[in-house]
Amino acid sequence: MKRTKIIEALRGDAGRADILVKGWVRTRRDAKDVSFLEVNDGSCRANIQVVADVGMDGYALLKDMGVGSAVAVRGELVASPGKGQRWELRAASVELIGAADQESYPLQKKRHSDEFLRTIAHLRPRTNKYGALFRIRSEMSFAIHEFFHARGFAYVHSPILTGSDCEGAGEMFRVTSLGAQEAAGLTAAERTARDFFGKDAYLTVSGQLAAEVFACSLGDVYTFGPTFRAEHSDTSRHAAEFWMLEPEMAFADLVDDMDLGEALLKSLTDAVLTRCAEDVELFASFVDKELPGRLGNIRDRPFVRLPYGEAVKILSGCGREFAYPVGFGLDLQSEHERYLTEVHFRGPVVVFDYPKEIKAFYMRQNDDGRTVAAMDVLVPGIGEIIGGSAREERLDVLEARVAELGLTMDDYWWYLDLRRFGSVPHAGFGLGFERLLMLLTGITNIRDVIPFPRTYRHLEF
Amino acid sequence: MKRTKIIEALRGDAGRADILVKGWVRTRRDAKDVSFLEVNDGSCRANIQVVADVGMDGYALLKDMGVGSAVAVRGELVASPGKGQRWELRAASVELIGAADQESYPLQKKRHSDEFLRTIAHLRPRTNKYGALFRIRSEMSFAIHEFFHARGFAYVHSPILTGSDCEGAGEMFRVTSLGAQEAAGLTAAERTARDFFGKDAYLTVSGQLAAEVFACSLGDVYTFGPTFRAEHSDTSRHAAEFWMLEPEMAFADLVDDMDLGEALLKSLTDAVLTRCAEDVELFASFVDKELPGRLGNIRDRPFVRLPYGEAVKILSGCGREFAYPVGFGLDLQSEHERYLTEVHFRGPVVVFDYPKEIKAFYMRQNDDGRTVAAMDVLVPGIGEIIGGSAREERLDVLEARVAELGLTMDDYWWYLDLRRFGSVPHAGFGLGFERLLMLLTGITNIRDVIPFPRTYRHLEF
Repeated sequence: MKRTKIIEALRGDAGRADILVKGWVRTRRDAKDVSFLEVNDGSCRANIQVVADVGMDGYALLKDMGVGSAVAVRGELVASPGKGQRWELRAASVELIGAADQESYPLQKKRHSDEFLRTIAHLRPRTNKYGALFRIRSEMSFAIHEFFHARGFAYVHSPILTGSDCEGAGEMFRVTSLGAQEAAGLTAAERTARDFFGKDAYLTVSGQLAAEVFACSLGDVYTFGPTFRAEHSDTSRHAAEFWMLEPEMAFADLVDDMDLGEALLKSLTDAVLTRCAEDVELFASFVDKELPGRLGNIRDRPFVRLPYGEAVKILSGCGREFAYPVGFGLDLQSEHERYLTEVHFRGPVVVFDYPKEIKAFYMRQNDDGRTVAAMDVLVPGIGEIIGGSAREERLDVLEARVAELGLTMDDYWWYLDLRRFGSVPHAGFGLGFERLLMLLTGITNIRDVIPFPRTYRHLEF
Repeated sequence: MKRTKIIEALRGDAGRADILVKGWVRTRRDAKDVSFLEVNDGSCRANIQVVADVGMDGYALLKDMGVGSAVAVRGELVASPGKGQRWELRAASVELIGAADQESYPLQKKRHSDEFLRTIAHLRPRTNKYGALFRIRSEMSFAIHEFFHARGFAYVHSPILTGSDCEGAGEMFRVTSLGAQEAAGLTAAERTARDFFGKDAYLTVSGQLAAEVFACSLGDVYTFGPTFRAEHSDTSRHAAEFWMLEPEMAFADLVDDMDLGEALLKSLTDAVLTRCAEDVELFASFVDKELPGRLGNIRDRPFVRLPYGEAVKILSGCGREFAYPVGFGLDLQSEHERYLTEVHFRGPVVVFDYPKEIKAFYMRQNDDGRTVAAMDVLVPGIGEIIGGSAREERLDVLEARVAELGLTMDDYWWYLDLRRFGSVPHAGFGLGFERLLMLLTGITNIRDVIPFPRTYRHLEF
């Protein structure tokens, strides 16, 4: 007999005479002639309550069905007289699939700290909280693909290995096929000659340049995949490996870019509220009481669009003392972003037209000579969630800016070629997927939204 | 005015009085008082034909609108009197967005070799063939997500960075935050102490172990992401970086695994035939005449299921001379797989119950003591497209096998924990995404199905 997933059993409209459920025991409660098992199979947050009468097939086995053990239960799905659930499973027979030693099983029925659960990252998805989190992570990934697919964007797998170390976003990891010991005994020339690619290789920090290539051929595209930073920062917001979403649109300007970012965030917020309601409720109850309000705000309110110069004026004139100075040409700090979104506007704000000095060389220069067509989407509770820009598509302007900054584009002849042959205005942005998940759940440590987090000094599992 | 994508213009049911199309010129043909531009924007394989009369706004600009230049055309979408297209665009005005110098633009209107196009990987998606290929790559990625989402599988982002070098599938790339020069001057202990993670790090060769963790908590899951091999093989089938799909099901056995693999391949084949019909037609016409037959075969015929022992008997008794020997305990070679699928059965074959000696340690041992519950899906023209197994879920059997093979599981205490606490039968498989694309398009070199391929000695772009 085929197993029925618990989500299907619980969400059905009718009882069923005979079903088979398999899952892991979350709790067991024994009364005189009856035992109650709460069983979860990961398909949804809710457990199914199994009612096992003393006369049932395999009742004697129940004593071995402690927390964490895997069981199969066959029986009748009936309306539950108890509160808290609509259906329960009246067991006709139970079977022990895999026991869990109650002395050594780390996940007993109590609240464990996030710190402890990180040390058992292979078991934490068996808890309510992390089960919910990883279901949301999955559903949001799918919602991203749906969003772009519906709009005719092609998904591009940008490369992880790159031959250039100057993508310009912090420290990069180096990749080699040589053992450390082996490499140490070689001269630089020998190393290069013997290494896999015959040249230095690195892990990518962004798929943007590849996305630009494909935007300039397929039109609208996006990348969504792992990216890497070797930053020696041991904070709750830094990970060495994380997923980035980077859409890129041909024939598009900064307004199109802001429109896309706003539509995406509203769509994903709506998706998590409607499709993951049961899981989101857990975070609203136990992690962040303000979550429903914040998500409703993002979904329902038009985002304020604010030139950087206006943002500076608001911050300068608000009378608040900030730790970091405010002024045209200075980057906005987290405290400034939070003031704008949480105090002044009480909602998402898109700041645009930043001074060129604080933004990347490839951003399109505005006619004022001092700003670029960049935009950051700021949201309450998180700060910057999206950073994007129109790209400089004018070859001469780009080359002049590269020279001005003393950069070298020798490795990027192909990037310049996009501006040589049929160049078009194009724009895109980057959204850190983990930061999105923190926004959508209220979780404040990036380690807790990644299946097996890799951070400074931490490479377990 | 918002641009209309060419796919929308050409697939509409009616003419339109005034639309704006933007794209790249594929060809231009000038007659006495009229010019014809074929314009493509990457949204579909078909170009839109632009008819520009001499009296039109901007007609003088046409002389600069050579192959590869980017243009905007505004006009009326009307039924085309010409053959080969249903609609054409009668231009009211044209605008040059970005020119392409006709002397230096590498993509002129002629057939270029695949080898040449690899040297301009940033421009090849602007050709018919590679545009089609990368649209198919995108659509098949989405079809994979849809397939699993519809079946309630959760998508898991398994880590790329791993701390263990014995995942057991060939050579691995090593990752470090130290410069090569810097590392060469350090002792081994100093290197470890100074490196980012404080231990050696590698690029993953498989997400399976992480998928098993999540199957044993969320139930049905899959990973889909980049994997890496530092194999020094410069062949048409090896890449250093490629995408792997790895589903994993809890409470599942080898039959479930074979059922899932067959359903997936049929679903993806159907998807490419129905959703990418125009692009597939290109490959059927210009790359592989047998493509439609092969795809129809995979979609429509039930896959043969054949125990390995039977496969050996068929191959031993078929009277054909093979380059590699055939016998129980020997691995099937490509020539054997092709004989089974192309000659003997003339369709896909799932070979299962392989001798344990030629399969990985984690595969579930059968009761016969000599085989494991492994399966490979073989398809005509490609050979193995899927490799999977039931996983050994019995702790004692797994540990005995590990000891027998002289492996060490010190780094894998967490993998063994899955067998210690609520262990369940589970099964999964791996599908190489590039190999799938080769199957679906008839392309025979893996370099030609990857946006920017990374292979032995090649790390360009």
